[in-house]
Amino acid sequence: MSAWRPSATVGVVGGGQLARMTQQAAIDLGIELRVLARGGEDAAASVSSLTTYGEPDSLNDLRRLAEACDVLTFDHELVPNRHLLQLESEGHNLQPRPRAKLLAQDKLHAREFMRDSEFPVPEFAPVRSPRDVETFAERCGWPLMLKRRSGGYDGRGVRVLADPRAADEVAYGDGQWIAEALVPIEIEASQVVVRARGGEVAAYPLVRTIQRDGICVETVAPAGVSPELAGRCRDLAIEIAGRIEAVGVMAVELFVTARGELLVNELALRPHNTGHFTIEGCETSQFENHLRAVLGWPLGPTWPLAPAVAMRNLIGSGFNEPSERVGAALRVPGAHLHLYGKEPAPGRKLGHVTALAEEAEEALRKCRETIEILQPEEVPWAP
Amino acid sequence: MSAWRPSATVGVVGGGQLARMTQQAAIDLGIELRVLARGGEDAAASVSSLTTYGEPDSLNDLRRLAEACDVLTFDHELVPNRHLLQLESEGHNLQPRPRAKLLAQDKLHAREFMRDSEFPVPEFAPVRSPRDVETFAERCGWPLMLKRRSGGYDGRGVRVLADPRAADEVAYGDGQWIAEALVPIEIEASQVVVRARGGEVAAYPLVRTIQRDGICVETVAPAGVSPELAGRCRDLAIEIAGRIEAVGVMAVELFVTARGELLVNELALRPHNTGHFTIEGCETSQFENHLRAVLGWPLGPTWPLAPAVAMRNLIGSGFNEPSERVGAALRVPGAHLHLYGKEPAPGRKLGHVTALAEEAEEALRKCRETIEILQPEEVPWAP
Repeated sequence: MSAWRPSATVGVVGGGQLARMTQQAAIDLGIELRVLARGGEDAAASVSSLTTYGEPDSLNDLRRLAEACDVLTFDHELVPNRHLLQLESEGHNLQPRPRAKLLAQDKLHAREFMRDSEFPVPEFAPVRSPRDVETFAERCGWPLMLKRRSGGYDGRGVRVLADPRAADEVAYGDGQWIAEALVPIEIEASQVVVRARGGEVAAYPLVRTIQRDGICVETVAPAGVSPELAGRCRDLAIEIAGRIEAVGVMAVELFVTARGELLVNELALRPHNTGHFTIEGCETSQFENHLRAVLGWPLGPTWPLAPAVAMRNLIGSGFNEPSERVGAALRVPGAHLHLYGKEPAPGRKLGHVTALAEEAEEALRKCRETIEILQPEEVPWAP
Repeated sequence: MSAWRPSATVGVVGGGQLARMTQQAAIDLGIELRVLARGGEDAAASVSSLTTYGEPDSLNDLRRLAEACDVLTFDHELVPNRHLLQLESEGHNLQPRPRAKLLAQDKLHAREFMRDSEFPVPEFAPVRSPRDVETFAERCGWPLMLKRRSGGYDGRGVRVLADPRAADEVAYGDGQWIAEALVPIEIEASQVVVRARGGEVAAYPLVRTIQRDGICVETVAPAGVSPELAGRCRDLAIEIAGRIEAVGVMAVELFVTARGELLVNELALRPHNTGHFTIEGCETSQFENHLRAVLGWPLGPTWPLAPAVAMRNLIGSGFNEPSERVGAALRVPGAHLHLYGKEPAPGRKLGHVTALAEEAEEALRKCRETIEILQPEEVPWAP
């Protein structure tokens, strides 16, 4: 076998598209990336000869990966935090550390930590019965949101309750629900930052996110907010990253209310969908900076390479097979396609498109045009 | 195994750094890349789970690869042209086609073709004896160049003969030598173009190349020549690409004489070292455009993303192990490192660095600073 020496060996728990794009960055830095994938159909499995097969909730599989790597990091949140604490106690190097990672794994813990640290969050309360929900509603009104403490993403694990009758229909048995005030959102935004092991922090341009059915469909930078508000988003995310001692990429999903109030919605402690635009759009991608950060290396510059950068997700719909139309889709000049090598399924993220332009609308137009070629049977996107 | 359907399956003969960087581009386009590598130590072998092991001069190994792919393309020139013709006659899809590829494989054939097509080339003649060399010298003077017809690269297979005595010391037995006039070169440049199967052509910015010991050490765009001269280089390369029906990336290495005369030195019909700057420096990289071209897909825009883009090679020297110093080298802001995963050896290309800047000198400075950190024992570069 090979006599080359990697610059470092990084383990990634999870073999999805984030691990796949991290591998593209790892190749450039001479990093040996070892991905823990569930099977050969995982997005990252086919782009490395070093895939490890196993389960992210198996302590043995996690330990096996950790033992082969200088540092262990994550493609997703679905790893039992107690396993991470155990591995850390055994001397393995996990980045971000389990205590910080928990803030992305447990929404109730995150909300309580944020509130206690005086970061702005929506009103919330853990609820274990219809009575709890009604008590919360007396304070914050109907309708309200019900969210799962953990495991929810892309709109899963979220419900809107219109009235007490709806609250009666929920099974509260597992103690996993949080009630949350329905905030009058003007725009949703995401602030991606990266924090290195030594404490160095860098912030990417703020993006506006456009959601459909709870899934992020598009991002655009600049976000179209005032420089003052963008500055507040950046400062808030940097302060959170420092307070929780985040390491690696952290995305802070934010609500901006009609009155210009900022509220933290969610934290992700890993490369994030709302940071995909950085691959072509910024001097250093979120994937390269995540690797630099978890290895304690200097961060790369995060400045944008064009006045406007848009990203649109390719989300599976029915029997669509976008890979058949790649050649056709590439006719849109300056649209950058990223396919994840996944079998199409409704609602599944299959890829994304990024475009740079002078104006936000022009960048979005290129992304939408490309996606419409890949998914001709879809109803055209109307913002 | 996986139920995803690739957008196309492309075979690459050769598992070096060009195949490695092509794989990074293939991942984005959902292309299944199958690389024919000699062994696990090849640069591209560790970045795919689909590496095929075999020899580029074995017809059986080539055929095995071709049978598994929609199209076959190349990482290097060291493939017997007769095997390519044989595979084409069997109905396999080779891009570029063997007839065009021969112009990169046989320097005498290329020189004769260029001369007969009235493209400017240095004076040359095949030589089989000291007498042949002296006859050539009567026309073009001493000193002169002696070059191998095939197999030479990175300065190998090239000699300068000072006088008739030097000509006596050469073994001419295999009929592999060409004599060539020593041209008074003002600058060396490279024009990278890409031509798709349908005939669409796009040109990258002209680069000036800086050589040391016959190896390209640096490239910089803009090349520092007049717009008129840059236009002539572009037009010349586009005309050659059309005339030879090149498909994929083609690099035309050019001599510019003190009198502003252009001469074609070499052709490469594959992604080329002098096109590495396009990964960060241009809207679409040479690797992505090579894939688009050989698949008959639309080409991506080739415009530059910054006023100046420089590239510097990391070339092995002695016992240097640059991978140990990656973390330190990343402190240069905006320098983009690419390591090839190869065991260090003197003269071996181990990686490269690219930087974008407002001015050429600033971009070069970032590249040189990065390389000096990776190779601290090297004598600092003096241009």
